[in-house]
Amino acid sequence: MAHAQSYAANPKRMARILDFLETIDQLKTVYRAAYLADHSRHESDAEHTWHTCLFALLLFNETDLDLDIRHALELILIHDLVEIYAGDTYVHLTEDRLAAQLREQTAAKRLFALLPKDVGKRMHQWWTEFEHGQTAEARFARAMDRLQGFTQNIFAGGRVWQERGVTEAMTRVVNQDAIDLDATLAEVYEALYERANKDHLWLVPQGASAEGA
Amino acid sequence: MAHAQSYAANPKRMARILDFLETIDQLKTVYRAAYLADHSRHESDAEHTWHTCLFALLLFNETDLDLDIRHALELILIHDLVEIYAGDTYVHLTEDRLAAQLREQTAAKRLFALLPKDVGKRMHQWWTEFEHGQTAEARFARAMDRLQGFTQNIFAGGRVWQERGVTEAMTRVVNQDAIDLDATLAEVYEALYERANKDHLWLVPQGASAEGA
Repeated sequence: MAHAQSYAANPKRMARILDFLETIDQLKTVYRAAYLADHSRHESDAEHTWHTCLFALLLFNETDLDLDIRHALELILIHDLVEIYAGDTYVHLTEDRLAAQLREQTAAKRLFALLPKDVGKRMHQWWTEFEHGQTAEARFARAMDRLQGFTQNIFAGGRVWQERGVTEAMTRVVNQDAIDLDATLAEVYEALYERANKDHLWLVPQGASAEGA
Repeated sequence: MAHAQSYAANPKRMARILDFLETIDQLKTVYRAAYLADHSRHESDAEHTWHTCLFALLLFNETDLDLDIRHALELILIHDLVEIYAGDTYVHLTEDRLAAQLREQTAAKRLFALLPKDVGKRMHQWWTEFEHGQTAEARFARAMDRLQGFTQNIFAGGRVWQERGVTEAMTRVVNQDAIDLDATLAEVYEALYERANKDHLWLVPQGASAEGA
């Protein structure tokens, strides 16, 4: 969009964008709790982000939601960037949630300041929009983020749930907003819960008999 | 949109989409020749795809190109999926190019057939559009794919070039279409070539003296 001459006028502009693109390579070595389906290693944030975009692309047309899918994809593509500085916070560690939010706000300021001012401001606004979850696009992006995170653990046979003592009830708490967003998403979740239960991916609650489960 | 009732009418539709989303987890274990910047491992196709989307998001507004960036992002998001079955083909292995194309066409048929017919057809069309590179969106998506691949090797200190005997001239051959697409992209490439030469990322040509290089 006719900004080509701005590089001559401001030679630092291109250097800043390239510096940012180099910095965000680090999202490939921020590892999540989730395993890849083949258990060869943990999933990187960059991989989670790509997969979440595919969930959005494939499921959006199946829902009754009225929103700008392009903008939802933009929000998804940048939603985890701050974890380069702030690290990944496991979804079920609720006691760390507030500290993580403060860490991420500091990280966002530092990260988006790498960019030319206009671009950094736009990216920071997108990230804030995702975090607040008040727009239709942010709600859908957040639902896809949650759905991918949940589904990845099913694809990987529930390993992280078993290792960390996560129960079905705990996952329902963090999935509830996504379940409530749309009837199709609720159906997708129910199919996934059915599979997880059929495959015995949940821990047997303490006190229950494994034989009787 | 407004397809929510189709799941009741066709219970296999949701199962097919979920099966596809599970299958494409494998893109996270298709590894490219490129290393991550920290050299801890090779970059996965999924990570490359995410990073390419960010190149597109950040550079599009700097160019004079007139195209639908949303559709370009769609093309980028799905462009490497067939490598789940066909494997990654290193860009400088020109002798394998035709065999790889045939492998990828077979892979595309197999992969997109996992989806409901209408969705699979759309994805297959997108993939074909990217491969043919005839639309403005496909040309830009291909340029971003090439630019990310080139830049990643600079971020990683040229390791794969040194390991595989790749010269600057070889990279210019595969980058030429992207360089020619837009004046801003040409400037970005020239800045990157300048850096690569300054950092001595290229092999010293056979017969030349290392001391004199």
